[in-house]
Amino acid sequence: MLRALETVVGPGHVVTDPDILAGRAVDYTGRYRGRAGALVRPGSAEEVAAVLRVCRDAGAHVTVQGGRTSLVAGTVPEHDDVLLSTERLRALGDVDTLERRVQAGAGATLAAVQHAGAAAGLVFGVDLAARDTATVGGMASTNAGGLRTVRYGNMGEQVLGLQVALPDGSLLRRHSLVRSDNTGYDLPALFVGAEGTLGVITALDLRLHPTPSHRVTAVCGFADLEALVAAGRMFRDVDGIAALELIDGRAGALIRQHLGVAVPVDGDWMLLVELAADHDQSDRLADLLDGVQLCGEPAVGVDVAARQRLWQVRESLAEVLGSYGPPLKFDVSLPLSAIAGFARDAVALLGTHAPDALPLLFGHVGEGNLHLNVLRCPVEREQAVYGPMMELIAGCGGNVSSEHGVGSRKRPYLGMSREPADIAAMRAVKAALDPTGYLNAAVLFV
Amino acid sequence: MLRALETVVGPGHVVTDPDILAGRAVDYTGRYRGRAGALVRPGSAEEVAAVLRVCRDAGAHVTVQGGRTSLVAGTVPEHDDVLLSTERLRALGDVDTLERRVQAGAGATLAAVQHAGAAAGLVFGVDLAARDTATVGGMASTNAGGLRTVRYGNMGEQVLGLQVALPDGSLLRRHSLVRSDNTGYDLPALFVGAEGTLGVITALDLRLHPTPSHRVTAVCGFADLEALVAAGRMFRDVDGIAALELIDGRAGALIRQHLGVAVPVDGDWMLLVELAADHDQSDRLADLLDGVQLCGEPAVGVDVAARQRLWQVRESLAEVLGSYGPPLKFDVSLPLSAIAGFARDAVALLGTHAPDALPLLFGHVGEGNLHLNVLRCPVEREQAVYGPMMELIAGCGGNVSSEHGVGSRKRPYLGMSREPADIAAMRAVKAALDPTGYLNAAVLFV
Repeated sequence: MLRALETVVGPGHVVTDPDILAGRAVDYTGRYRGRAGALVRPGSAEEVAAVLRVCRDAGAHVTVQGGRTSLVAGTVPEHDDVLLSTERLRALGDVDTLERRVQAGAGATLAAVQHAGAAAGLVFGVDLAARDTATVGGMASTNAGGLRTVRYGNMGEQVLGLQVALPDGSLLRRHSLVRSDNTGYDLPALFVGAEGTLGVITALDLRLHPTPSHRVTAVCGFADLEALVAAGRMFRDVDGIAALELIDGRAGALIRQHLGVAVPVDGDWMLLVELAADHDQSDRLADLLDGVQLCGEPAVGVDVAARQRLWQVRESLAEVLGSYGPPLKFDVSLPLSAIAGFARDAVALLGTHAPDALPLLFGHVGEGNLHLNVLRCPVEREQAVYGPMMELIAGCGGNVSSEHGVGSRKRPYLGMSREPADIAAMRAVKAALDPTGYLNAAVLFV
Repeated sequence: MLRALETVVGPGHVVTDPDILAGRAVDYTGRYRGRAGALVRPGSAEEVAAVLRVCRDAGAHVTVQGGRTSLVAGTVPEHDDVLLSTERLRALGDVDTLERRVQAGAGATLAAVQHAGAAAGLVFGVDLAARDTATVGGMASTNAGGLRTVRYGNMGEQVLGLQVALPDGSLLRRHSLVRSDNTGYDLPALFVGAEGTLGVITALDLRLHPTPSHRVTAVCGFADLEALVAAGRMFRDVDGIAALELIDGRAGALIRQHLGVAVPVDGDWMLLVELAADHDQSDRLADLLDGVQLCGEPAVGVDVAARQRLWQVRESLAEVLGSYGPPLKFDVSLPLSAIAGFARDAVALLGTHAPDALPLLFGHVGEGNLHLNVLRCPVEREQAVYGPMMELIAGCGGNVSSEHGVGSRKRPYLGMSREPADIAAMRAVKAALDPTGYLNAAVLFV
C-alpha cells in the first residue's frame, strides 16, 4: 500500500518516520493519543481521491488531518491509520467582490482566508483563537463557531460550495457561481459538521461579508451570572451586534497576574460586547449599557488600539489556560435560562470529583454556547468527571457537543443528545457513502 | 390497503371521491396533472409514520401534499399515488420569546406562523405571496425563499429542529431546546430542500427574529437593467436591508391598467427597497438613493399606509399575472453580472419560439434569484421553450432551479446544474433512506 500511495503523491509525501507519526497521533491538548501507520500529503483533490481508493482497496483506515486543533480528539487515529493531511491544499483563489466569495483549498488556514478577504475590503464571517493553525477544511468539517457567530453564524453558513473526495474515490464538486443554490439535496450542509466521516473536503467556496466601517467594543463587569445572561439576551437582539463573549471573572485575575494584561473592570463575570455597522454606534452602545445593571463602569473602546486592549482580555485566555497544563474542556450549548443553574451545578460536581480543580467558564452567550475549562484536573480524575458532566448538561436541556463537535472524546455520549431513530438515520447515510466504514472511523459513532 | 389506512387515520380521513382526487392531482398553475388513488389525512406524526408503513408494505407510491402552491409541479402524483396531506398537522406551540422560537405543525400556514410570531412581538423570517396557503412543512421541504431572503435567508435558515417520518416508518425528532446545535450530521439541513423524497416533515422548530421598530420603503425607477442590478448590489451590502425586489416596468403598466393600483414611478425597471432597523433609517435611505442614477424621483414611504401602497405594486403581481391564464414560470438564479445579458437573451429566445408571449421579469435581486413569468405562452409551445431556456440559464453560469425547487417539472434538467458524482451521491442518500423509492417518486430525479 505504501508503494501505491507513493505512486499517487510522490515518495516525498508519504511519511513513515515514527517520531513524526507519533507527533501526529496525539491531540492538541496532549490528553489523547492514538496510532498511525503513515502520513500522506496529497497535493490535489484528484490525489486525495486516489489516496482514498488505495486505502479502501487495501483495507486501511484513514484519518483526515487539517490544522489538528480539535478539542475533542477529532483527528486522533485508532487503527494504525493512514493520516491524510490537507496541508498542501492551501491555494486561495481571487476574491470575487461582486458575489463576495473566495475559493480556498481545504488546507488554507483561517488567517489566510481572513487576510485575503481583508485585502479585498471584505471580512470573513468566522474568527477563533486558533486562526493561524486551524484550516478552513477542518473548520467546515466540524462546523466551527467562534467569536463572530452571533453576527454571521457558524462555519456552515459561510460555505457556498464544496469539493469533496468521497469514500468511493470519486470527486464531488458543488462550486456554483450563484449565491442562491437550491437544486437538489443540500449536500454541502451534510458534509459540513460530518467530522470527515462522509468524505474529505478538498476545497471550499466561502462567503465574504461587507466590512463594517465603525466598531465599538466594551467590557462590562457583572456581580452575578443571571444579570450577565439577561444583558446578553438583550444585546443578542440588537442591530449590529458583532461579538458577545462571556468571560469568567477569575480568569481576569489570572490574566492580570500571569500576563500583566490590564483587565479594566471588576466583577465576578465579564461580558465583552461589540457593535459594528456602517455608521457610528458609540452613542447607541452607551444608551444600551445605561439600561443594564453593571458592576462598576464599563470600559469602552472605539479606536483600534483601545479596542485591541479590550479584546486582549479574551484573546489571552488560551495562553493563561495553557500555562496550567492541558485543560479539561467541555464545549456545550444550553438554553439561556439554564446557564446560571448549570454553572452552579457544574462547580458542585467538580468539587465532589476533583476538589483541587479550577473551573473557568467562557463562551458565546448569544448562542448559549459555553466552554467550561477545568484547570488542574488530574488526567486520572477525568473519567470520573466526564460522564456526570455530560449527564448534567443533558439534564439542563443542553447539547453535549457544540462548536467543537463530537470527535472521538464525546462518542459515548452521542445518545444523550440524539434519539435512536436519529442515530440510525445518520448511520444509514454513513453506510450509504462509506459502506466499509474506513474513513474517520474514530469519531462520532461508537 | 385502504382498509388499513382507515384503521390508522379513521374512515373520515381516507378519501377516494374521484372529483376530490382529480382536484388534488393537478398543480397550482393548472398546467400539470397526474393520477391519485386516495387521499389520506393523518392527524399526528405517529399516524403519518403508520401511513407510510402501510403504503410501503402495500407497494403503493406516496406523494406528500402541503398547501400545493408548488410552481414546479412538486405535488403532482404520477403512479395512482396515495396523497398524504399534512392539512391536519397545523398545531402551533407557544412562542418562546427567550430563545425566539416556535414549534409548528407541518400543515400550519405561513400566515399562521407569522401571526403567532407577531402576537409575541417577533417576526418570522420568510414571507411570500402564497402566505395564506403555503404550509411551513412544504416550504421547508422546498427551502422556499421569498421577499425577505436578503435579510434573513431562506426557509432552511429558519429551521432549528424537525420531526420527520422516515420512509421506513420510524419517527426522527431533532427538536433541541438550544440555538446552537452541532451534534452529529445536520439532518435537518438534509430534509430541508429534499422535496419530500427522504421523509415527511411533520413538525418544525422555527426561529423568530426581533421586530425592527423602524422601516422605510422606496420604489425607484431605472432606465436600464444594468443600472438596477448595480444599485441592487450596493443595497444588498448595506446594514438593515430588508427587501430588494426587481419589478418589470411593463408589469407596472399592467397593474395600473387592470387593478387601478397607483404605480408611483416610471422607468423600464423598478426596484423596491426596504430598510429596517431599531432606529430611523429615512435619512440613510435618502443618502443612499442620492448616489444612484434613477429614472425620475423615487417614491418613499415611512408610515404603514404609505409603505403598504408601495408594497402593493409587488403584491399585485400574482393577481395580474393570473388574469392572463396560468403563466409559464422560470425560477432561476444567476450571477449578478449575468442578469442583464440573460434578460436580453431570454426575450430573444421567446421571440423565436413563442412570438405572442409576454415575458415579465421579477425577482429577489440580492440573491440573483429571478422569476421569468411568461404570459400568453400557449401550452403547446411550452416544450419548445423550456429546454432551450434551461440551457440558456446554465450557459450563463446560473442554476436551473432556485427557490421553487426542482419538482417534477425540472427533473430532466437536474444534470445541467449538478455533476454526475453529485447526483450519484444524492441517489445514494435517497436509496439509504428509501430503498424502494416509493416516497415522492415524481420529483427531483428522472
